[in-house]
Amino acid sequence: MSDEPRETVVRATCRALCAHGYANLTMQDIADETDLSKAALHYHYDTKRDLLTTFLDSLASWYEGRLEDLPGDDPAARLHALFDECLTTDADADYPAFHTAMLEVKAQAPYEEAYRERLTAVDDVLRSRVEGLVAEGIDEGVFREVDPEATANFVASVVVGAHTRNVAVGHSLAETRVLLDAYVDDHLLTDEGEATREAAR
Amino acid sequence: MSDEPRETVVRATCRALCAHGYANLTMQDIADETDLSKAALHYHYDTKRDLLTTFLDSLASWYEGRLEDLPGDDPAARLHALFDECLTTDADADYPAFHTAMLEVKAQAPYEEAYRERLTAVDDVLRSRVEGLVAEGIDEGVFREVDPEATANFVASVVVGAHTRNVAVGHSLAETRVLLDAYVDDHLLTDEGEATREAAR
Repeated sequence: MSDEPRETVVRATCRALCAHGYANLTMQDIADETDLSKAALHYHYDTKRDLLTTFLDSLASWYEGRLEDLPGDDPAARLHALFDECLTTDADADYPAFHTAMLEVKAQAPYEEAYRERLTAVDDVLRSRVEGLVAEGIDEGVFREVDPEATANFVASVVVGAHTRNVAVGHSLAETRVLLDAYVDDHLLTDEGEATREAAR
Repeated sequence: MSDEPRETVVRATCRALCAHGYANLTMQDIADETDLSKAALHYHYDTKRDLLTTFLDSLASWYEGRLEDLPGDDPAARLHALFDECLTTDADADYPAFHTAMLEVKAQAPYEEAYRERLTAVDDVLRSRVEGLVAEGIDEGVFREVDPEATANFVASVVVGAHTRNVAVGHSLAETRVLLDAYVDDHLLTDEGEATREAAR
């Protein structure tokens, strides 16, 4: 087991979570996704909660990495690229199962302090990245003088709401993607920002 | 049981759902919230799924009623009143438990067609009410010529996202309330609409 990297266990937990959902997930399901016996898995992780907590830790780091190097020459372009990252589905075939399972995990947050902490870290990654880009845009004169923190909070609610509605009622993420783009262009861009956007097209 | 109105069963289901969550909820838990035996409850409702489906039907009607007669002299004021309805917590002490349970139910939607249909009806109530108010505002000249359907979809994602984040990471609904008000004032109001809003203050 000492040779079994944490990453392998994290990936196995993610696959098992997508295949079985959170409520039905067992340690055996996760062990089945590795070369380990259930006993070997138990040696390092006492409970399903410990495995999920480790998985959520990795998720926050992974998400931070994905939002770190966004393509685009200016903050507006990078914000649009961020929406691509947060609201695109086709890159990952497991997408619906993953987001359905994540919704189950979110519903556990009020009862599981460890989950709530990690889900907050994931939420913070999104908010702080948007807040940074909005602040950058204001500094560069491409965005209006809005409140970066409040704007980031608003954008985070739109992104999370789109995912919840995608799972619950089949709402199209692509549609929210278009609406968020329009929000940035109408609500944030200054005349200078608009000219920059136009020139980049 | 024939004397037991449907409404009593719906309320019992809601109370039991708030007390036990969805995953752990049993027919017995629901029967315990009524004067009925579990057998009597089973006589009319085969499964927990049937009870939940009936509850979700009632929820859609109840929500429609709440969003029907919104106070306010113009569409902008009524839209702000709608946000009050959708993002206020203090009226209902069971609020966190209710929304946590609803998040669990939403995570079941991909597997339970009956839930998905009713959750879609609830989503439609919100969307169509917002869409109607935006269209009214455009007709009356207080709102800019936006796409009412797209705007309603955007607002629905903000509202749903705020509730999901409230459950998962303790996000403040009051904060989203302020941000949605700002969105309407900045994004939708025409100069005439702004003058009307100022006069009403």
